[in-house]
Amino acid sequence: MAYNLLKGKKGIIFGALNDMSLAWKIAEKCIEEGAEIVLTNTPLSIRMGGVQEFAAKHNIPLIPADATSVEDLTNLVNQSVEHFGGKFDFILHSIGMSLNVRKKKPYDDLDYDFLQKTLDISAISFHKVLQTTKKLDAMNEWGSIVALSYVAAQRTMYEYNDMADAKAVLESIARSFGYIYGRERKIRINTISQSPTLTTAGNGIKGFDSLVDFADRMSPLGNATADECADYCITLFSDLTRKVTMQNLFHDGGFSSMGMSCRAMHQYNKSFENDDNK
Amino acid sequence: MAYNLLKGKKGIIFGALNDMSLAWKIAEKCIEEGAEIVLTNTPLSIRMGGVQEFAAKHNIPLIPADATSVEDLTNLVNQSVEHFGGKFDFILHSIGMSLNVRKKKPYDDLDYDFLQKTLDISAISFHKVLQTTKKLDAMNEWGSIVALSYVAAQRTMYEYNDMADAKAVLESIARSFGYIYGRERKIRINTISQSPTLTTAGNGIKGFDSLVDFADRMSPLGNATADECADYCITLFSDLTRKVTMQNLFHDGGFSSMGMSCRAMHQYNKSFENDDNK
Amino acid sequence: MAYNLLKGKKGIIFGALNDMSLAWKIAEKCIEEGAEIVLTNTPLSIRMGGVQEFAAKHNIPLIPADATSVEDLTNLVNQSVEHFGGKFDFILHSIGMSLNVRKKKPYDDLDYDFLQKTLDISAISFHKVLQTTKKLDAMNEWGSIVALSYVAAQRTMYEYNDMADAKAVLESIARSFGYIYGRERKIRINTISQSPTLTTAGNGIKGFDSLVDFADRMSPLGNATADECADYCITLFSDLTRKVTMQNLFHDGGFSSMGMSCRAMHQYNKSFENDDNK
Amino acid sequence: MAYNLLKGKKGIIFGALNDMSLAWKIAEKCIEEGAEIVLTNTPLSIRMGGVQEFAAKHNIPLIPADATSVEDLTNLVNQSVEHFGGKFDFILHSIGMSLNVRKKKPYDDLDYDFLQKTLDISAISFHKVLQTTKKLDAMNEWGSIVALSYVAAQRTMYEYNDMADAKAVLESIARSFGYIYGRERKIRINTISQSPTLTTAGNGIKGFDSLVDFADRMSPLGNATADECADYCITLFSDLTRKVTMQNLFHDGGFSSMGMSCRAMHQYNKSFENDDNK
Repeated sequence: MAYNLLKGKKGIIFGALNDMSLAWKIAEKCIEEGAEIVLTNTPLSIRMGGVQEFAAKHNIPLIPADATSVEDLTNLVNQSVEHFGGKFDFILHSIGMSLNVRKKKPYDDLDYDFLQKTLDISAISFHKVLQTTKKLDAMNEWGSIVALSYVAAQRTMYEYNDMADAKAVLESIARSFGYIYGRERKIRINTISQSPTLTTAGNGIKGFDSLVDFADRMSPLGNATADECADYCITLFSDLTRKVTMQNLFHDGGFSSMGMSCRAMHQYNKSFENDDNK
Repeated sequence: MAYNLLKGKKGIIFGALNDMSLAWKIAEKCIEEGAEIVLTNTPLSIRMGGVQEFAAKHNIPLIPADATSVEDLTNLVNQSVEHFGGKFDFILHSIGMSLNVRKKKPYDDLDYDFLQKTLDISAISFHKVLQTTKKLDAMNEWGSIVALSYVAAQRTMYEYNDMADAKAVLESIARSFGYIYGRERKIRINTISQSPTLTTAGNGIKGFDSLVDFADRMSPLGNATADECADYCITLFSDLTRKVTMQNLFHDGGFSSMGMSCRAMHQYNKSFENDDNK
Repeated sequence: MAYNLLKGKKGIIFGALNDMSLAWKIAEKCIEEGAEIVLTNTPLSIRMGGVQEFAAKHNIPLIPADATSVEDLTNLVNQSVEHFGGKFDFILHSIGMSLNVRKKKPYDDLDYDFLQKTLDISAISFHKVLQTTKKLDAMNEWGSIVALSYVAAQRTMYEYNDMADAKAVLESIARSFGYIYGRERKIRINTISQSPTLTTAGNGIKGFDSLVDFADRMSPLGNATADECADYCITLFSDLTRKVTMQNLFHDGGFSSMGMSCRAMHQYNKSFENDDNK
Repeated sequence: MAYNLLKGKKGIIFGALNDMSLAWKIAEKCIEEGAEIVLTNTPLSIRMGGVQEFAAKHNIPLIPADATSVEDLTNLVNQSVEHFGGKFDFILHSIGMSLNVRKKKPYDDLDYDFLQKTLDISAISFHKVLQTTKKLDAMNEWGSIVALSYVAAQRTMYEYNDMADAKAVLESIARSFGYIYGRERKIRINTISQSPTLTTAGNGIKGFDSLVDFADRMSPLGNATADECADYCITLFSDLTRKVTMQNLFHDGGFSSMGMSCRAMHQYNKSFENDDNK
């Protein structure tokens, strides 16, 4: 069911890879709700995923850009403005990658070049997107920018590694730049802290399945799916949320406000049933 | 501009008094977005405000109820279900009153009977609404409940008095009951922490004008208005936010994430210009 | 090992029942660190516990008082000032009780008279202690007041019931009154949010053992014991923490900052080993 | 007045520059409380400040180290262990610097090489200290590590610039590494979020004086001084706080829990007195 919530709005979606991606689902939903969009990802991701087919099918531009490169971003923003025939209204940032996670370097044996890359790709890229867009004066007043985050920014999750630090900076950038973009251009910036989701990105993390199960049993409404994340994201891009800014918004079925649920406790207690050396 | 976001949805609105009320604006917006609603307030508020005209104009039921009375609430919920011809989908709780504030009893000279009334009217009434509705099994799955709160629940505001404690309990009830209503009926419960708004309710608080000015200068997007609050509330009642629960959501132009803004600092600094005994 | 951290200081300890009580351990530690103290509890608790022996052994006054009675509190404060020969320096509030918990009324079937008692005994009593003490001008400048809280004030814990709401108000009172007592008398007010501890008070709560086990495995340093809580409390009563106020301080081995630990996940995963209908 | 709180304890203090530095005051207090310490700073800071005289006066080692260099840190830790004749018990990290602040690059015109340096110097250096110390197994069980932070990690402060992001990562590192160091070595890691303090470090920030004034009037106990910070830090290094970990601890006279104080509002209101175009 569509509401035309984004009718007349234009935006750029970073990070769609394949049909498991949060960004992919959000892009689909934006189109359904009447928006015009431009897709972007790194050249490598474009080759590896299915985003070319997606762009072709919907007849929308797919502009390669490395989000850590101000030059690429400048080109992307300029081309987008040209494509749209003017300024645009929203941005989705859904980018994260840690070589420490991929190469299985634990958090007490980090490679510092990898850490710098983690921060650059997963967080500072967001600042670069914002600064580039603002310098080019490419967004309309009352525009809306969203980046995807995770509760590990607040609470330590076994094996989430240096991505926790990256998410903490990401959320800080949303606040710091949100203040400036708000006061000068009435543009709002928020992060959505989404339930763990079985996407390609999530798959790299050890023990991720168990975590997803635990989060699901802890959350009274269960984990939020990628489709539900897209629904929520649409409300933040719409004109109905104009005064929400500099916030980290939990979209997680209640997980973030839970200490212990009956369902998770019940499952946990089973662990002792055949357990002699408790 | 309407989106039919609440088409087919039914709900109860507590606390509309006159056209300055947040609840009034929310009620209007619900109707615009296609919802059927029932209005309720105390008999006294109904006599004092303009809500009868509102109900008559829109041809909607206005059912008197004291939200601290389980009996009244039972009657209200039953009548509403009868009116709607079935279960309903959303509730707005916008109720708050402190006799300590009204009678100018400062926070270090509270009247404890008044304090009990503050908590009963402004917070426990919310629990009574929830418990009554759940016992009568009167809400549809994936329904949404919102109560209005204020940042004083987290940060002490000069002269906000025992209403700060009431808002703290209100938000706690949203979490505690949100867990249960979520796991058993898929119903979500959130609070909106709204900018200070010049409503009839806000007027009782000493120095409230200055606070509104300060909050406005601190907030990069300025204070959120009652109309904007209504817009935001609609997204929370819609099907697009199904996995957001147990959250306190700041709708405040960014105030809650600000430590000090350029604009507020600039104004503050003026205070020293003709100030000899700084 | 003692440091004379509280040499010359005087204080009142609420809530010592028996040698499992947090307040009991804190009282012992205060004495070890050189403080003079007055003990207080309800007449019933005094009869049921071992606090009379404790008082006799250490030759300290034990003054019965119902902390919900302003009259009793006035008498307690006056007698304490008389005993100390002047104003005192610290207060510990360790009081909590819920008839809804005791009578096994679940959170969606609360008895509202019980709820009022829960709030009155577990939270508003703290305000009464503060207001009474301030009105009688009974504390020295730079005094320190601590109340014991629990993380359920922020995150819903299965079966913690209306005590969560009580702790939320308790922490709000610490902030609201902390502002006033700070600006007028330089007195600080904080809450310690302590690990679940197997005291007599904790025993009433269903499934509390499992929760203690889970919290212990989640916390990198394990749960904090009552003795450790006493150590921590001493630092807050000392002159070394004069500028810490209006804070809720987690003393929990790290639990509050954890999302998932290796140890808890490992135990959780065992639950699936012999689990056919996962 | 000294309590011998740190008798027998050994530690490393990073960041003492001159007698206005927080680290300088903390170093003095550690010595007063019976600790043995090693001082360290960059070669440049050592030349510019008075720390050589401090070290000479107290006859303690001053070991130059660039905290962004793992090699330098390895040397520092090894030399410290040799000096102490064994493992040590505490570390203070008080390091922060932003070239963007110094060169007056506003937050929406950041130089990204400078940003990388800000993060490396002000936050990642903390991870390097922790990882190096852990790899060399140089700390005793139940040791305590503290880094100094600022409320800008949570709330945007005009002109605090990219230091806000650095403090957000710093606090995230404290949590992430605190989990690992806690579970494996019983070592705790916390940050102290200190009032704005007129140190050499603070002086670089535009409008800092006004901010200090505002913070002071907002805080019921006034801003915390460097001496008071040293007092508080001592409690965190002592054995009395063993179960406090992964926390950000506000030491700010109450600022962080204030929304608006009477005193700040009163001053703010003066700004309108001779203000025609309010």
